[in-house]
Amino acid sequence: MSEWFNDTGMQNDIVISTRVRLARNLKGIPFPHKAGEENCRKVVALVEEALSALNYKFTKVDLSQLTQTQRQALVEERYISLNMAECKRPGAVFISEDKTVSIMVNEEDHLRMQSIFAGYESQKAYDIISKVDSYLAEKLEYAVHPKYGYLTSCLTNAGTGMRTSYMLHLPAIVNAGIAENLFAAAGKLGITVRGMYGEGTKAGGYLFQISNQITMGRSEEEIMTNLSKVAENIIAKERELRTKMHKQKGVVMEDQIMRSLGVLRSARLMQSKELLTLLSNIRLGISLGLITELDSKTLNSLMIETSPAHVTNENITTAMERDIERARIIREKLVKG
Amino acid sequence: MSEWFNDTGMQNDIVISTRVRLARNLKGIPFPHKAGEENCRKVVALVEEALSALNYKFTKVDLSQLTQTQRQALVEERYISLNMAECKRPGAVFISEDKTVSIMVNEEDHLRMQSIFAGYESQKAYDIISKVDSYLAEKLEYAVHPKYGYLTSCLTNAGTGMRTSYMLHLPAIVNAGIAENLFAAAGKLGITVRGMYGEGTKAGGYLFQISNQITMGRSEEEIMTNLSKVAENIIAKERELRTKMHKQKGVVMEDQIMRSLGVLRSARLMQSKELLTLLSNIRLGISLGLITELDSKTLNSLMIETSPAHVTNENITTAMERDIERARIIREKLVKG
Repeated sequence: MSEWFNDTGMQNDIVISTRVRLARNLKGIPFPHKAGEENCRKVVALVEEALSALNYKFTKVDLSQLTQTQRQALVEERYISLNMAECKRPGAVFISEDKTVSIMVNEEDHLRMQSIFAGYESQKAYDIISKVDSYLAEKLEYAVHPKYGYLTSCLTNAGTGMRTSYMLHLPAIVNAGIAENLFAAAGKLGITVRGMYGEGTKAGGYLFQISNQITMGRSEEEIMTNLSKVAENIIAKERELRTKMHKQKGVVMEDQIMRSLGVLRSARLMQSKELLTLLSNIRLGISLGLITELDSKTLNSLMIETSPAHVTNENITTAMERDIERARIIREKLVKG
Repeated sequence: MSEWFNDTGMQNDIVISTRVRLARNLKGIPFPHKAGEENCRKVVALVEEALSALNYKFTKVDLSQLTQTQRQALVEERYISLNMAECKRPGAVFISEDKTVSIMVNEEDHLRMQSIFAGYESQKAYDIISKVDSYLAEKLEYAVHPKYGYLTSCLTNAGTGMRTSYMLHLPAIVNAGIAENLFAAAGKLGITVRGMYGEGTKAGGYLFQISNQITMGRSEEEIMTNLSKVAENIIAKERELRTKMHKQKGVVMEDQIMRSLGVLRSARLMQSKELLTLLSNIRLGISLGLITELDSKTLNSLMIETSPAHVTNENITTAMERDIERARIIREKLVKG
């Protein structure tokens, strides 16, 4: 019943989270950006009705009822995309009661359904989103082309409509100066590497999202296998380089890691950017066994709970007030009474 | 029975320590640098004999028996001067059992006796060193000129032979950019401002030694009163500016102070220079009531125990090993079990 970021998962020394999403559209209705308000509302209603009969409870979140900060908070928790937060069309997001599935309606496609888990959990995420998809396929008439597969607003998503992505923490790969080459090589295998909040965002705190670029002409299984192979190579490389980096830098690295923890526990002002760097050092410290009193679960929830929109409340109007509040949240979480 | 740096004292929010020293020479024996080895040994013997009858036990430390590191450690504890540590002449230092009085024999003068206390304690230091001086004056024949007073190797010390100095922590004065003007004004009143280890050393961690420049033509009382007046003005100014600085910088200053504590408690490598800056921030934090779990006594002893010679032992050969050991000592002292 808890959010993905309050959980842990496999290979959590490197893999922050796994997300599988499917793009689907309804037959006979134009894609959202051309559909017009009435059609958009109709799609929301159709999805809501289909889900209401499902033995797996979803809560409808009407984005038009939310403030910009509340939408941003959903982006930070990764239940909706940045596009969805800024979308003016009638739309909604349906979030399952166990918080593992979210369905955006009228983002780029009529349905963008995703399942997200902490750690390296593609099978788990795929299984659950497939079940939801199969169920909805019975209730709704999807737009499918006999040869090309599922039709989507943007051609790059057509075919399986599936995109699987891992959020990876890769400080040693970046530090070794091989990130660019490695990501270029992955690109040749049909794998994209992006910043932490998806397309067009920058990598902060050594966090990268790697995902499949190709969705057409291959089966879902082939896509998953291909991505997993590349991801596992990157993960193995990162692990190898961490050990090597620790051997080479020794106490200099330990000093940097332990100071990061000391600063987090004592700072009275904390900006997002510095926080990402400090959290990166602490993740590294946990994975090297230098820090034993914290785990990836605590860091995942801290990362989300200290994101800009999460820190903002009605009493906070300036950037400095936000930095004070962020530092307070961190201390509350990391300093034991 | 404890060292001055394991103690506290008056006005310890700004005044680290008070030292009163008297320069004395024996009649009929050339000053140390011209005395020759035999005379030097004779002076040591005379002082030792005089002290042996005193109902206040002194321990003789033969500097020629000490390693360079051990001599340096005595400099860091401020029982001997840097000059004495490097002196090749036969010499010794006599340290009282309660560690409040030390008598250097054959430094620049035959006798350089001093009393040192934590905090603003000139009366206490003056009283005890005067008693030792009066006692020795009965046993030894001092070189005294009827008009000029006590004769000394260097003219600047002749007269009373007395120098009183306070080690002050003045971060707010430095930060306000008024240190140079203030020290120049003090200079016109016959007061010298120097770095923390005395003449020719630089001010680190915002620590300054202020002392009387003039020793002749005034009584000991006049000298003390003049110095105290200037010192108390500087102390009042520093206190005023600290409050002002805290009001102006607010949480930015608190953040810097609390981070300093966090870094000290967690670092695995610590260089002397960074340590002085961090200790300065923490002293400021204590004086502003932001840090309540530490006191000036802990910081004084930490400052001495982490000085280069104190950190060095037979297992330590590199600068990095020293920085590791320094960080370990700090954690041991500051992190509660």
